[in-house]
Amino acid sequence: MTSSTVEVRLTADQDRLGRWLDTFAALSEPDSGPGVTRLAHTPLERRAHALFIEHMSGLGLDVHTDAVGNTIAELSGTAPDSPALGTGSHLDSVPNAGAFDGIAGVVAAMETAQLYTEHDVRPAHPVRFVAFAAEEGARFGQACTGSRVAAGLTTAPDLETKFDADGVSLAEAMRSVGLKPAEAAGARWSTAGWAAFLELHIEQGSVLESTGIPLGVVDLISGSTRFRLDLTGRASHTGGTPMHQRADTLAAAAEIVLLIETIATDSRHHGTRATVGKLDVAPGSITTIAGNARLHVDVRDVDSDRQRLTAAEIIDRAHAVAARRGVGFRAHPLADASPVLLPRRITDVVAATCDELGFAHRVLPSGASHDAQMVNHVTPAGMIFVPSRAGVSHSPDEWTDVADIARGTEVLAHSLIRLDTTLPVPGSEQP
Amino acid sequence: MTSSTVEVRLTADQDRLGRWLDTFAALSEPDSGPGVTRLAHTPLERRAHALFIEHMSGLGLDVHTDAVGNTIAELSGTAPDSPALGTGSHLDSVPNAGAFDGIAGVVAAMETAQLYTEHDVRPAHPVRFVAFAAEEGARFGQACTGSRVAAGLTTAPDLETKFDADGVSLAEAMRSVGLKPAEAAGARWSTAGWAAFLELHIEQGSVLESTGIPLGVVDLISGSTRFRLDLTGRASHTGGTPMHQRADTLAAAAEIVLLIETIATDSRHHGTRATVGKLDVAPGSITTIAGNARLHVDVRDVDSDRQRLTAAEIIDRAHAVAARRGVGFRAHPLADASPVLLPRRITDVVAATCDELGFAHRVLPSGASHDAQMVNHVTPAGMIFVPSRAGVSHSPDEWTDVADIARGTEVLAHSLIRLDTTLPVPGSEQP
Repeated sequence: MTSSTVEVRLTADQDRLGRWLDTFAALSEPDSGPGVTRLAHTPLERRAHALFIEHMSGLGLDVHTDAVGNTIAELSGTAPDSPALGTGSHLDSVPNAGAFDGIAGVVAAMETAQLYTEHDVRPAHPVRFVAFAAEEGARFGQACTGSRVAAGLTTAPDLETKFDADGVSLAEAMRSVGLKPAEAAGARWSTAGWAAFLELHIEQGSVLESTGIPLGVVDLISGSTRFRLDLTGRASHTGGTPMHQRADTLAAAAEIVLLIETIATDSRHHGTRATVGKLDVAPGSITTIAGNARLHVDVRDVDSDRQRLTAAEIIDRAHAVAARRGVGFRAHPLADASPVLLPRRITDVVAATCDELGFAHRVLPSGASHDAQMVNHVTPAGMIFVPSRAGVSHSPDEWTDVADIARGTEVLAHSLIRLDTTLPVPGSEQP
Repeated sequence: MTSSTVEVRLTADQDRLGRWLDTFAALSEPDSGPGVTRLAHTPLERRAHALFIEHMSGLGLDVHTDAVGNTIAELSGTAPDSPALGTGSHLDSVPNAGAFDGIAGVVAAMETAQLYTEHDVRPAHPVRFVAFAAEEGARFGQACTGSRVAAGLTTAPDLETKFDADGVSLAEAMRSVGLKPAEAAGARWSTAGWAAFLELHIEQGSVLESTGIPLGVVDLISGSTRFRLDLTGRASHTGGTPMHQRADTLAAAAEIVLLIETIATDSRHHGTRATVGKLDVAPGSITTIAGNARLHVDVRDVDSDRQRLTAAEIIDRAHAVAARRGVGFRAHPLADASPVLLPRRITDVVAATCDELGFAHRVLPSGASHDAQMVNHVTPAGMIFVPSRAGVSHSPDEWTDVADIARGTEVLAHSLIRLDTTLPVPGSEQP
């Protein structure tokens, strides 16, 4: 890069950021209740990618969408054959979500690309701005599908084995929006092609807000073990069936929900989070004892072994609850990702950039999973967190001030410049 | 009636009963899962009534459907201006029901009418064969809507205040299938017009099967208090939200489900049944802590005071659970019916008929609500129970042998004849 670009202090345009956030938020499933509902591998997710493509193409970047729906916009580097720097996040949402989870990182990437263009910042490394597909696990249980494929952690055959609640496979859902899951291998990123990656994201926790610090540098991302428990009891009449003759699956499910809460809050589990977020009970009639119940369980931890042991303990003890109540029990694994320690040499660059720009920061772990966790299998990855109001996320009440996103965008844009100057390019000497 | 008819031993036709059961069972919502789904005030319920009308008209009976969907087929009596005897049950079902609940009583009425016609049985009292509408409370919370209107317990304005899960009112649902809820007053039965009523029904419990006795004579019908509990917590990210910062409505709901089970099984409550059959959790995503939950609670008892005290205790203690967990709480009453003691003079006639026909019987209470309970507000009512396999009902596994329904039909047909000879008709002397 030219020395002149280092001297530019890039200032993010808050109006522009706000307009993009509003534009994406408007892409929500009609009649889906409060907040934003834009599930993975739906026409609405593709429309969000189309807006990203339109903006990035307009800036003159080279844009393409891979076989599994990730969209990559490349600003060419001044050093030929240099590996790429990258940044981005995702454009899909959980049901009844807010407008910031994932989106904040994509609009920060869009703004960074625009700032580089406007200020003629030309890094030596090419810079790839990425909108990942299908990050949320809400629909298929499996999170980070787009980035997992890019990292080679999920392959074409795997896409045939994950299903949504309607029995639609990941591969089928992809085909329904014009993607080519059979060609997933072509979407895999090569380590040789990449130098580093940064993701800006809302914190989805309350550490930054409660400490009054505007920026977080993530050192550790929690892992997640997800499974489904299917309970089969005996549907029968609520009036005709005495209490002692019941095999009530909702009562069994209730006991399991509280068991999970108890395990996650006992003294062995400081930092474990275990949740039943989805419980479906059938037939679902006020005058029929529940004959079937399905619990969806998510176990998160920063300790890989404890995460798997907790999941195993939940399954064992839930099985015992079901057996005692005469209720049939089956456990189905849904997804499993280990916690990830992000490389120090990337977090150090982000921290130094915060200092350079005069923004306070703190190093903190991420409770949620992120695309950066998957990308870190290919190239060193880092994350920049901006504050979440009251720590709320996956909710219509999710909120981050646009000023906070602007500050995060400036850290992102300048961190990429700092990485560009500190990481080697072909033909240059090692720094 | 002529003396000759008393001497006829009526034998129910099992093939005919079986065919009708099959015909009604085939009227089920497509894609609704296992068993029969024919909810109250749907086109399918009306088609079932149309089959009933067709059969009864074919026998030469005078058939009409009232403003709220009850269909009444009248066999005229030989004594002019005599009050009517009646029998019948309902043709709607809960979701994923069996083929016998309600239907058994309607096909027994259809067979009784056919046996009377074939054997030229002409009672002095007119005999009204009734298919009630909307007996099941599954859709609107309120059970026995058709018979409640007939008994004057539910009036036109009430029909505007009960809603299904989609927010459709009872009145709206009635209008959608061509009924006239505003004219409900015209569907009310007058005490002067009725002499007695009998309902045949499957037991929906296991007393008859476990004792090997084929017939039950009901002395007491349980009451039912129904309400909905709405919980409002804080939807948030399952990874980002520490266990101690949650307001998890599913965990609160689970505690309430177990609390209800505990209350109903403690030593004060021998005979109480309390059930959460329906629990809806939102947004229902594996990665989002539940922000909202709705529990539908049904409390049944043979003791009226204990029934209401139990409901009040559940609401109080559930409120305390929610408060402790920082979860908002509202209780909404749905329906309330007192237990009913059926008149001895009717149960004695049914018991004597069983003896006359050589069938063993036992007197027993009903755990479920029934149309006869409502009709008893207008005219003395009785119930004949036939065995339920394993006591299972409101389930695709619900089963009663057609031989048992045939035996019950014979007791029904002969009990009406016995009532005809023992109850006064105008101009006759008191018996």
